[in-house]
Amino acid sequence: MTELESLRDELRSFAAERDWDQFHSPKNLAMALSAEAGELLEVFQWLTPEESATLAPEKHAAVSEEIADVLLYLVRLGDQLGIDPVAAAQRKLAENERKYPADKARGNARKYTEL
Amino acid sequence: MTELESLRDELRSFAAERDWDQFHSPKNLAMALSAEAGELLEVFQWLTPEESATLAPEKHAAVSEEIADVLLYLVRLGDQLGIDPVAAAQRKLAENERKYPADKARGNARKYTEL
Amino acid sequence: MTELESLRDELRSFAAERDWDQFHSPKNLAMALSAEAGELLEVFQWLTPEESATLAPEKHAAVSEEIADVLLYLVRLGDQLGIDPVAAAQRKLAENERKYPADKARGNARKYTEL
Amino acid sequence: MTELESLRDELRSFAAERDWDQFHSPKNLAMALSAEAGELLEVFQWLTPEESATLAPEKHAAVSEEIADVLLYLVRLGDQLGIDPVAAAQRKLAENERKYPADKARGNARKYTEL
Repeated sequence: MTELESLRDELRSFAAERDWDQFHSPKNLAMALSAEAGELLEVFQWLTPEESATLAPEKHAAVSEEIADVLLYLVRLGDQLGIDPVAAAQRKLAENERKYPADKARGNARKYTEL
Repeated sequence: MTELESLRDELRSFAAERDWDQFHSPKNLAMALSAEAGELLEVFQWLTPEESATLAPEKHAAVSEEIADVLLYLVRLGDQLGIDPVAAAQRKLAENERKYPADKARGNARKYTEL
Repeated sequence: MTELESLRDELRSFAAERDWDQFHSPKNLAMALSAEAGELLEVFQWLTPEESATLAPEKHAAVSEEIADVLLYLVRLGDQLGIDPVAAAQRKLAENERKYPADKARGNARKYTEL
Repeated sequence: MTELESLRDELRSFAAERDWDQFHSPKNLAMALSAEAGELLEVFQWLTPEESATLAPEKHAAVSEEIADVLLYLVRLGDQLGIDPVAAAQRKLAENERKYPADKARGNARKYTEL
């Protein structure tokens, strides 16, 4: 069992023990995930890009918590819809390799449609 | 090497080959992650919770792509800050077990501060 | 002077008095706006659509605060970029009237590209 | 009638003509607003704060459209819940004047709890 499958199973038990499946529709989980992503933004919103790379310990800890929350909701959402997040990410990465050839994409952040 | 460590390494190579590290500050990655979370919302926004659990194939595929994008940015963000997403999620889940005792949390979605 | 122009001017003074213009780049304001939108999601995430229309007083007050925060950042962002939010909204609404003819859009939430 | 009241009324007619009230629960509108905020992030995510203040024309136009979308959903959400966005913003701004005294807040972006 991979580490995300293990998280998935723990989240299933966690929800079942609390009778929370009724709240965990994909719609609601997408909202919860996005709300956590918003908390991640809040940590970074007034920092310069440079400052964001050298966080004070309490901000680093806050980011770690938000990363955790996003991952937990992501795994749960994938489980509710039968989507394997890692397999989906591997496919997307392979697709991005094709869409963004290194020689054309080097050093610019343009969208693949504008390369 | 775990599956997320493997993704992490592939993302490092992907960025290095394109000279994209300059764009991948934690601040920017948090924005990109949140923008992808917003695309996830868009799929679900007009659906009932029930409809969100039985997606048409093209919507299911769209959700799979957005889950992939969120995970890729999450792994990359964690890498830039030295945060292991799975370890953080395991810690958070253990904390949630304490904050939400099954007997008090059963069947309601109140925040732990209101239990 | 319209009510949003009045808000705009008050926000200008508010920022100037605190020397906060340095933090109010459009990039940062977009992040702050989106973080507040995330707090709005948090109020609604576990509610059914029906429950979301009949909020308890403390949740209603929370939504009112988040609506305020989103509007303040929106006005400030528009000001920094020379965009009049109301004029932009009027243009968009006129465009939506064309994209979503009442007879084709009636009773369904499909995107205009799928009508 | 103020400009936002006028927008509110136009949105009421727009929704009524399309029988879209069924989709416009506060929950769904909060999702739509947040999804549009995510599109705003996308425009800015790889730009430096400085670049974000001097947008190319097509990016400026994109931001204008997203500002419009956020405002339209904000007005509609306020209408569904009987919240006047401008009055709420005026109250919040007055509160922020108290929370962030100019002499303590000058030149730093700390939260009021940390001043």
